[in-house]
Amino acid sequence: MQDLTERLKQFRDERDWAQFHNAKDLALALSIEANELLEAFLWNAAEEADPVKVQEELADVFAFALLLADRYNFDVREIVLDKVAKNEVKYPVEKSKGTAKKYTEL
Amino acid sequence: MQDLTERLKQFRDERDWAQFHNAKDLALALSIEANELLEAFLWNAAEEADPVKVQEELADVFAFALLLADRYNFDVREIVLDKVAKNEVKYPVEKSKGTAKKYTEL
Amino acid sequence: MQDLTERLKQFRDERDWAQFHNAKDLALALSIEANELLEAFLWNAAEEADPVKVQEELADVFAFALLLADRYNFDVREIVLDKVAKNEVKYPVEKSKGTAKKYTEL
Amino acid sequence: MQDLTERLKQFRDERDWAQFHNAKDLALALSIEANELLEAFLWNAAEEADPVKVQEELADVFAFALLLADRYNFDVREIVLDKVAKNEVKYPVEKSKGTAKKYTEL
Repeated sequence: MQDLTERLKQFRDERDWAQFHNAKDLALALSIEANELLEAFLWNAAEEADPVKVQEELADVFAFALLLADRYNFDVREIVLDKVAKNEVKYPVEKSKGTAKKYTEL
Repeated sequence: MQDLTERLKQFRDERDWAQFHNAKDLALALSIEANELLEAFLWNAAEEADPVKVQEELADVFAFALLLADRYNFDVREIVLDKVAKNEVKYPVEKSKGTAKKYTEL
Repeated sequence: MQDLTERLKQFRDERDWAQFHNAKDLALALSIEANELLEAFLWNAAEEADPVKVQEELADVFAFALLLADRYNFDVREIVLDKVAKNEVKYPVEKSKGTAKKYTEL
Repeated sequence: MQDLTERLKQFRDERDWAQFHNAKDLALALSIEANELLEAFLWNAAEEADPVKVQEELADVFAFALLLADRYNFDVREIVLDKVAKNEVKYPVEKSKGTAKKYTEL
Protein backbone atom coordinates (compact mmCIF):
# COMPACT_ATOMS: atom_id res chain seq x y z
CA MET A 1 0.00 0.00 0.00
CA GLN A 2 2.82 2.42 0.85
CA ASP A 3 4.29 2.30 -2.64
CA LEU A 4 0.84 3.02 -4.11
CA THR A 5 0.73 6.15 -1.98
CA GLU A 6 4.22 7.07 -3.14
CA ARG A 7 3.13 6.71 -6.78
CA LEU A 8 0.11 8.96 -6.16
CA LYS A 9 2.27 11.59 -4.45
CA GLN A 10 4.75 11.53 -7.30
CA PHE A 11 1.90 12.14 -9.78
CA ARG A 12 0.63 14.97 -7.55
CA ASP A 13 4.03 16.60 -7.06
CA GLU A 14 4.97 16.51 -10.75
CA ARG A 15 1.87 18.72 -11.23
CA ASP A 16 2.48 20.85 -8.12
CA TRP A 17 -0.95 19.93 -6.79
CA ALA A 18 -0.13 19.52 -3.08
CA GLN A 19 -1.20 23.17 -2.67
CA PHE A 20 -4.81 22.17 -3.50
CA HIS A 21 -4.82 18.95 -1.46
CA ASN A 22 -5.86 20.18 1.96
CA ALA A 23 -7.74 17.56 3.98
CA LYS A 24 -11.16 19.19 3.49
CA ASP A 25 -10.94 19.24 -0.32
CA LEU A 26 -9.56 15.68 -0.36
CA ALA A 27 -12.68 14.65 1.58
CA LEU A 28 -14.85 16.47 -0.98
CA ALA A 29 -13.01 14.70 -3.80
CA LEU A 30 -13.59 11.35 -2.10
CA SER A 31 -17.33 11.95 -1.82
CA ILE A 32 -17.50 13.15 -5.44
CA GLU A 33 -15.69 10.04 -6.69
CA ALA A 34 -17.85 7.76 -4.54
CA ASN A 35 -20.85 9.33 -6.26
CA GLU A 36 -19.41 8.90 -9.74
CA LEU A 37 -19.09 5.25 -8.75
CA LEU A 38 -22.70 5.29 -7.54
CA GLU A 39 -23.74 6.57 -10.94
CA ALA A 40 -22.68 3.22 -12.44
CA PHE A 41 -25.56 1.68 -10.49
CA LEU A 42 -28.19 4.38 -11.02
CA TRP A 43 -31.48 3.09 -12.51
CA ASN A 44 -29.74 -0.31 -12.75
CA ALA A 45 -29.80 -3.57 -10.87
CA ALA A 46 -26.40 -4.28 -9.26
CA GLU A 47 -25.38 -6.76 -11.94
CA GLU A 48 -26.09 -4.34 -14.81
CA ALA A 49 -23.41 -1.81 -13.85
CA ASP A 50 -20.59 -1.38 -16.36
CA PRO A 51 -17.56 -3.06 -14.71
CA VAL A 52 -15.14 -0.75 -16.55
CA LYS A 53 -16.81 2.33 -15.06
CA VAL A 54 -16.90 0.66 -11.62
CA GLN A 55 -13.18 -0.11 -11.88
CA GLU A 56 -12.20 3.42 -12.88
CA GLU A 57 -14.29 5.20 -10.27
CA LEU A 58 -13.31 2.78 -7.51
CA ALA A 59 -9.67 3.42 -8.40
CA ASP A 60 -10.31 7.17 -7.92
CA VAL A 61 -11.90 6.46 -4.55
CA PHE A 62 -8.81 4.53 -3.45
CA ALA A 63 -6.53 7.28 -4.76
CA PHE A 64 -8.14 10.06 -2.72
CA ALA A 65 -8.58 7.81 0.33
CA LEU A 66 -4.85 6.98 0.24
CA LEU A 67 -3.88 10.65 -0.17
CA LEU A 68 -6.11 11.62 2.72
CA ALA A 69 -4.67 8.85 4.91
CA ASP A 70 -1.21 10.11 4.00
CA ARG A 71 -2.13 13.68 4.96
CA TYR A 72 -2.92 12.41 8.49
CA ASN A 73 -0.02 9.93 8.58
CA PHE A 74 -2.50 7.13 9.11
CA ASP A 75 -1.38 3.56 8.56
CA VAL A 76 -4.30 2.21 6.50
CA ARG A 77 -3.86 -1.34 7.75
CA GLU A 78 -3.87 -0.19 11.34
CA ILE A 79 -6.92 2.08 11.12
CA VAL A 80 -9.00 -0.55 9.30
CA LEU A 81 -8.09 -3.31 11.80
CA ASP A 82 -8.84 -0.86 14.60
CA LYS A 83 -12.28 -0.15 13.18
CA VAL A 84 -13.02 -3.86 12.74
CA ALA A 85 -12.19 -4.35 16.43
CA LYS A 86 -14.60 -1.52 17.35
CA ASN A 87 -17.30 -2.96 15.10
CA GLU A 88 -16.98 -6.32 16.81
CA VAL A 89 -18.16 -4.61 19.99
CA LYS A 90 -20.91 -2.61 18.24
CA TYR A 91 -22.13 -5.62 16.27
CA PRO A 92 -21.83 -8.73 18.46
CA VAL A 93 -22.34 -11.88 16.36
CA GLU A 94 -25.26 -13.15 18.40
CA LYS A 95 -27.26 -9.92 17.93
CA SER A 96 -26.32 -8.98 14.40
CA LYS A 97 -26.20 -12.34 12.63
CA GLY A 98 -28.37 -12.31 9.51
CA THR A 99 -29.79 -8.84 10.08
CA ALA A 100 -28.86 -5.57 8.35
CA LYS A 101 -30.04 -3.43 11.26
CA LYS A 102 -27.85 -0.59 12.47
CA TYR A 103 -26.20 -1.13 15.85
CA THR A 104 -28.46 1.55 17.35
CA GLU A 105 -31.46 -0.64 16.57
CA LEU A 106 -30.12 -4.06 17.60
CA MET B 1 -4.00 -5.37 1.31
CA GLN B 2 -5.24 -8.91 0.62
CA ASP B 3 -5.16 -9.91 4.27
CA LEU B 4 -7.15 -6.76 5.18
CA THR B 5 -9.82 -7.91 2.74
CA GLU B 6 -9.73 -11.38 4.30
CA ARG B 7 -10.26 -9.89 7.77
CA LEU B 8 -13.23 -7.85 6.50
CA LYS B 9 -14.78 -10.90 4.86
CA GLN B 10 -14.33 -12.93 8.02
CA PHE B 11 -16.14 -10.21 10.00
CA ARG B 12 -18.88 -10.16 7.34
CA ASP B 13 -19.29 -13.94 7.18
CA GLU B 14 -19.43 -14.42 10.96
CA ARG B 15 -22.54 -12.20 10.77
CA ASP B 16 -23.92 -13.78 7.60
CA TRP B 17 -23.95 -10.40 5.87
CA ALA B 18 -22.78 -11.41 2.38
CA GLN B 19 -26.48 -11.66 1.46
CA PHE B 20 -26.80 -7.85 1.86
CA HIS B 21 -23.50 -6.98 0.20
CA ASN B 22 -24.51 -6.74 -3.44
CA ALA B 23 -22.37 -4.31 -5.43
CA LYS B 24 -25.03 -1.60 -5.58
CA ASP B 25 -25.54 -1.46 -1.82
CA LEU B 26 -21.77 -1.57 -1.23
CA ALA B 27 -21.52 1.51 -3.47
CA LEU B 28 -24.27 3.20 -1.44
CA ALA B 29 -22.42 2.34 1.78
CA LEU B 30 -19.22 3.81 0.36
CA SER B 31 -20.94 7.11 -0.50
CA ILE B 32 -22.61 7.22 2.92
CA GLU B 33 -19.29 6.67 4.73
CA ALA B 34 -17.53 9.25 2.53
CA ASN B 35 -20.20 11.71 3.64
CA GLU B 36 -19.81 10.84 7.32
CA LEU B 37 -16.15 11.66 6.75
CA LEU B 38 -17.17 14.91 5.05
CA GLU B 39 -19.17 15.80 8.13
CA ALA B 40 -15.90 16.06 10.09
CA PHE B 41 -15.08 19.09 7.92
CA LEU B 42 -18.53 20.71 7.81
CA TRP B 43 -18.55 24.37 8.95
CA ASN B 44 -14.85 23.88 9.75
CA ALA B 45 -11.55 24.83 8.22
CA ALA B 46 -9.59 21.72 7.18
CA GLU B 47 -7.29 21.85 10.20
CA GLU B 48 -10.19 21.98 12.69
CA ALA B 49 -11.59 18.55 11.89
CA ASP B 50 -11.46 16.01 14.69
CA PRO B 51 -8.71 13.54 13.65
CA VAL B 52 -10.35 10.70 15.57
CA LYS B 53 -13.57 11.11 13.58
CA VAL B 54 -11.55 11.39 10.35
CA GLN B 55 -9.70 8.19 11.19
CA GLU B 56 -12.84 6.20 11.96
CA GLU B 57 -14.81 7.32 8.93
CA LEU B 58 -11.85 6.93 6.58
CA ALA B 59 -11.43 3.38 7.90
CA ASP B 60 -15.07 2.71 6.97
CA VAL B 61 -14.45 4.10 3.49
CA PHE B 62 -11.52 1.71 3.02
CA ALA B 63 -13.55 -1.19 4.37
CA PHE B 64 -16.38 -0.79 1.85
CA ALA B 65 -13.98 0.06 -0.99
CA LEU B 66 -12.04 -3.16 -0.30
CA LEU B 67 -15.24 -5.23 -0.11
CA LEU B 68 -16.45 -3.76 -3.39
CA ALA B 69 -13.09 -4.41 -5.06
CA ASP B 70 -13.30 -8.00 -3.81
CA ARG B 71 -16.81 -8.40 -5.25
CA TYR B 72 -15.37 -7.59 -8.71
CA ASN B 73 -12.13 -9.51 -8.14
CA PHE B 74 -10.20 -6.30 -8.73
CA ASP B 75 -6.58 -6.14 -7.66
CA VAL B 76 -6.52 -2.74 -5.90
CA ARG B 77 -2.88 -2.11 -6.71
CA GLU B 78 -3.46 -2.82 -10.36
CA ILE B 79 -6.57 -0.70 -10.82
CA VAL B 80 -5.01 2.30 -9.06
CA LEU B 81 -1.79 2.12 -11.10
CA ASP B 82 -3.93 1.72 -14.20
CA LYS B 83 -5.87 4.87 -13.37
CA VAL B 84 -2.68 6.83 -12.66
CA ALA B 85 -1.46 5.84 -16.14
CA LYS B 86 -4.74 7.07 -17.66
CA ASN B 87 -4.57 10.31 -15.69
CA GLU B 88 -1.06 10.95 -16.99
CA VAL B 89 -2.60 11.18 -20.45
CA LYS B 90 -5.58 13.27 -19.31
CA TYR B 91 -3.41 15.61 -17.26
CA PRO B 92 -0.09 16.15 -19.06
CA VAL B 93 2.40 17.87 -16.75
CA GLU B 94 2.96 20.83 -19.04
CA LYS B 95 -0.75 21.68 -19.19
CA SER B 96 -1.83 20.84 -15.67
CA LYS B 97 1.11 22.03 -13.56
CA GLY B 98 -0.04 24.36 -10.80
CA THR B 99 -3.69 24.48 -11.91
CA ALA B 100 -6.68 22.70 -10.40
CA LYS B 101 -8.67 22.81 -13.63
CA LYS B 102 -10.48 19.70 -14.81
CA TYR B 103 -9.00 17.99 -17.86
CA THR B 104 -12.02 19.08 -19.89
CA GLU B 105 -10.98 22.70 -19.32
CA LEU B 106 -7.22 22.44 -19.82
CA MET C 1 -44.18 24.17 -5.83
CA GLN C 2 -46.96 21.80 -6.92
CA ASP C 3 -46.90 23.02 -10.53
CA LEU C 4 -43.10 22.53 -10.61
CA THR C 5 -43.67 18.92 -9.62
CA GLU C 6 -46.33 18.60 -12.32
CA ARG C 7 -43.90 19.93 -14.94
CA LEU C 8 -41.25 17.40 -13.82
CA LYS C 9 -43.74 14.54 -13.98
CA GLN C 10 -44.85 15.60 -17.44
CA PHE C 11 -41.20 15.55 -18.60
CA ARG C 12 -40.77 12.13 -16.98
CA ASP C 13 -43.96 10.65 -18.41
CA GLU C 14 -43.32 11.85 -21.97
CA ARG C 15 -40.16 9.69 -21.77
CA ASP C 16 -41.84 6.80 -19.95
CA TRP C 17 -39.32 7.06 -17.12
CA ALA C 18 -41.59 6.43 -14.13
CA GLN C 19 -40.57 2.75 -14.40
CA PHE C 20 -37.00 3.72 -13.36
CA HIS C 21 -38.01 6.21 -10.65
CA ASN C 22 -38.37 3.97 -7.63
CA ALA C 23 -37.64 5.76 -4.36
CA LYS C 24 -34.23 4.15 -3.88
CA ASP C 25 -32.89 5.21 -7.27
CA LEU C 26 -34.36 8.70 -6.84
CA ALA C 27 -32.37 8.93 -3.59
CA LEU C 28 -29.23 7.80 -5.45
CA ALA C 29 -29.87 10.43 -8.13
CA LEU C 30 -30.25 13.09 -5.44
CA SER C 31 -26.90 12.20 -3.87
CA ILE C 32 -25.22 12.09 -7.28
CA GLU C 33 -26.56 15.54 -8.20
CA ALA C 34 -25.60 16.96 -4.79
CA ASN C 35 -22.07 15.76 -5.52
CA GLU C 36 -22.00 17.29 -9.00
CA LEU C 37 -22.91 20.51 -7.20
CA LEU C 38 -20.12 19.88 -4.70
CA GLU C 39 -17.71 19.59 -7.60
CA ALA C 40 -18.28 23.29 -8.36
CA PHE C 41 -16.54 24.01 -5.05
CA LEU C 42 -13.75 21.41 -5.23
CA TRP C 43 -10.24 22.88 -4.83
CA ASN C 44 -11.95 26.30 -4.73
CA ALA C 45 -12.85 28.86 -2.13
CA ALA C 46 -16.64 29.30 -1.91
CA GLU C 47 -16.65 32.50 -3.92
CA GLU C 48 -14.70 30.98 -6.82
CA ALA C 49 -17.36 28.45 -7.82
CA ASP C 50 -18.89 28.95 -11.26
CA PRO C 51 -22.44 30.25 -10.57
CA VAL C 52 -23.75 28.75 -13.81
CA LYS C 53 -22.62 25.27 -12.74
CA VAL C 54 -24.05 25.85 -9.25
CA GLN C 55 -27.38 26.90 -10.75
CA GLU C 56 -27.65 23.89 -13.05
CA GLU C 57 -26.68 21.30 -10.45
CA LEU C 58 -28.85 22.86 -7.75
CA ALA C 59 -31.77 22.74 -10.20
CA ASP C 60 -31.14 18.99 -10.60
CA VAL C 61 -31.10 18.58 -6.82
CA PHE C 62 -34.49 20.28 -6.56
CA ALA C 63 -35.85 18.20 -9.43
CA PHE C 64 -35.04 14.85 -7.80
CA ALA C 65 -36.02 16.08 -4.34
CA LEU C 66 -39.43 17.14 -5.69
CA LEU C 67 -39.91 13.83 -7.51
CA LEU C 68 -39.00 11.90 -4.37
CA ALA C 69 -41.37 14.01 -2.25
CA ASP C 70 -44.08 13.28 -4.82
CA ARG C 71 -43.41 9.54 -4.64
CA TYR C 72 -44.20 9.68 -0.89
CA ASN C 73 -47.03 12.20 -1.27
CA PHE C 74 -45.15 14.57 1.02
CA ASP C 75 -46.19 18.22 1.11
CA VAL C 76 -42.77 19.91 0.89
CA ARG C 77 -43.90 22.97 2.82
CA GLU C 78 -45.27 20.83 5.62
CA ILE C 79 -42.26 18.52 6.01
CA VAL C 80 -39.80 21.43 6.05
CA LEU C 81 -41.79 23.41 8.64
CA ASP C 82 -42.13 20.20 10.65
CA LYS C 83 -38.35 19.72 10.61
CA VAL C 84 -37.72 23.35 11.61
CA ALA C 85 -40.00 22.80 14.61
CA LYS C 86 -38.02 19.66 15.56
CA ASN C 87 -34.73 21.51 15.13
CA GLU C 88 -35.93 24.25 17.46
CA VAL C 89 -36.04 21.61 20.20
CA LYS C 90 -32.68 20.04 19.21
CA TYR C 91 -30.96 23.40 18.88
CA PRO C 92 -32.31 25.75 21.57
CA VAL C 93 -31.20 29.33 20.86
CA GLU C 94 -29.45 29.75 24.20
CA LYS C 95 -27.24 26.70 23.67
CA SER C 96 -26.60 26.90 19.94
CA LYS C 97 -26.20 30.63 19.33
CA GLY C 98 -22.95 31.37 17.51
CA THR C 99 -21.68 27.78 17.57
CA ALA C 100 -21.63 25.25 14.74
CA LYS C 101 -21.59 22.27 17.11
CA LYS C 102 -23.89 19.34 16.43
CA TYR C 103 -26.80 18.97 18.86
CA THR C 104 -25.17 15.84 20.28
CA GLU C 105 -22.26 17.99 21.46
CA LEU C 106 -24.13 21.01 22.81
CA MET D 1 -41.43 28.70 -1.51
CA GLN D 2 -40.23 32.19 -0.58
CA ASP D 3 -41.84 32.08 2.85
CA LEU D 4 -40.21 28.68 3.52
CA THR D 5 -36.85 30.31 2.83
CA GLU D 6 -37.78 33.19 5.15
CA ARG D 7 -38.61 30.72 7.92
CA LEU D 8 -35.26 28.94 7.45
CA LYS D 9 -33.38 32.24 7.55
CA GLN D 10 -35.18 33.30 10.70
CA PHE D 11 -34.16 30.00 12.35
CA ARG D 12 -30.58 30.56 11.16
CA ASP D 13 -30.40 34.19 12.27
CA GLU D 14 -31.82 33.54 15.74
CA ARG D 15 -28.77 31.27 16.20
CA ASP D 16 -26.33 33.63 14.47
CA TRP D 17 -25.41 30.87 12.00
CA ALA D 18 -25.11 32.94 8.79
CA GLN D 19 -21.37 33.20 9.58
CA PHE D 20 -21.01 29.43 8.95
CA HIS D 21 -23.28 29.30 5.90
CA ASN D 22 -20.87 30.07 3.08
CA ALA D 23 -21.87 28.47 -0.21
CA LYS D 24 -19.21 25.74 -0.04
CA ASP D 25 -20.26 24.47 3.38
CA LEU D 26 -23.94 24.65 2.39
CA ALA D 27 -23.08 22.39 -0.56
CA LEU D 28 -21.29 20.00 1.83
CA ALA D 29 -24.33 20.00 4.12
CA LEU D 30 -26.58 19.21 1.16
CA SER D 31 -24.47 16.20 0.17
CA ILE D 32 -24.32 14.99 3.78
CA GLU D 33 -28.11 15.20 4.15
CA ALA D 34 -28.65 13.51 0.78
CA ASN D 35 -26.53 10.66 2.11
CA GLU D 36 -28.42 10.44 5.39
CA LEU D 37 -31.47 10.06 3.18
CA LEU D 38 -29.67 7.39 1.16
CA GLU D 39 -29.02 5.51 4.39
CA ALA D 40 -32.78 4.91 4.69
CA PHE D 41 -32.45 2.69 1.59
CA LEU D 42 -29.16 0.97 2.42
CA TRP D 43 -29.37 -2.88 2.36
CA ASN D 44 -33.10 -2.40 1.69
CA ALA D 45 -35.45 -2.65 -1.24
CA ALA D 46 -36.99 0.76 -2.03
CA GLU D 47 -40.29 -0.11 -0.39
CA GLU D 48 -38.66 -1.15 2.90
CA ALA D 49 -37.26 2.29 3.77
CA ASP D 50 -38.69 3.90 6.90
CA PRO D 51 -40.94 6.72 5.60
CA VAL D 52 -40.39 8.78 8.75
CA LYS D 53 -36.63 8.77 8.20
CA VAL D 54 -37.14 9.56 4.50
CA GLN D 55 -39.38 12.49 5.41
CA GLU D 56 -36.95 13.97 7.94
CA GLU D 57 -33.85 13.65 5.78
CA LEU D 58 -35.63 14.90 2.66
CA ALA D 59 -36.78 17.94 4.66
CA ASP D 60 -33.11 18.62 5.53
CA VAL D 61 -32.19 18.33 1.86
CA PHE D 62 -34.83 20.94 0.95
CA ALA D 63 -33.70 23.20 3.79
CA PHE D 64 -30.07 23.36 2.65
CA ALA D 65 -31.05 23.53 -1.03
CA LEU D 66 -33.30 26.53 -0.29
CA LEU D 67 -30.59 28.26 1.76
CA LEU D 68 -28.06 27.71 -1.00
CA ALA D 69 -30.49 29.05 -3.63
CA ASP D 70 -31.02 32.09 -1.41
CA ARG D 71 -27.27 32.67 -1.12
CA TYR D 72 -27.14 33.00 -4.93
CA ASN D 73 -30.45 34.86 -5.21
CA PHE D 74 -31.76 32.09 -7.43
CA ASP D 75 -35.48 31.84 -8.04
CA VAL D 76 -36.04 28.09 -7.51
CA ARG D 77 -39.00 27.97 -9.88
CA GLU D 78 -37.04 29.67 -12.60
CA ILE D 79 -33.87 27.56 -12.34
CA VAL D 80 -35.82 24.30 -12.32
CA LEU D 81 -37.93 25.27 -15.35
CA ASP D 82 -34.74 26.42 -17.07
CA LYS D 83 -33.12 23.04 -16.45
CA VAL D 84 -36.18 21.15 -17.70
CA ALA D 85 -35.95 23.19 -20.92
CA LYS D 86 -32.27 22.25 -21.27
CA ASN D 87 -33.04 18.60 -20.57
CA GLU D 88 -35.65 18.59 -23.32
CA VAL D 89 -32.82 19.28 -25.75
CA LYS D 90 -30.44 16.76 -24.15
CA TYR D 91 -33.10 14.07 -23.93
CA PRO D 92 -35.36 14.28 -27.01
CA VAL D 93 -38.46 12.13 -26.51
CA GLU D 94 -37.86 10.00 -29.60
CA LYS D 95 -34.36 9.00 -28.46
CA SER D 96 -34.85 8.71 -24.71
CA LYS D 97 -38.31 7.16 -24.43
CA GLY D 98 -38.23 4.07 -22.24
CA THR D 99 -34.48 4.03 -21.78
CA ALA D 100 -32.46 5.10 -18.73
CA LYS D 101 -29.33 5.81 -20.76
CA LYS D 102 -27.41 9.01 -20.13
CA TYR D 103 -27.63 11.62 -22.90
CA THR D 104 -23.98 10.99 -23.75
CA GLU D 105 -24.91 7.42 -24.72
CA LEU D 106 -28.16 8.05 -26.58
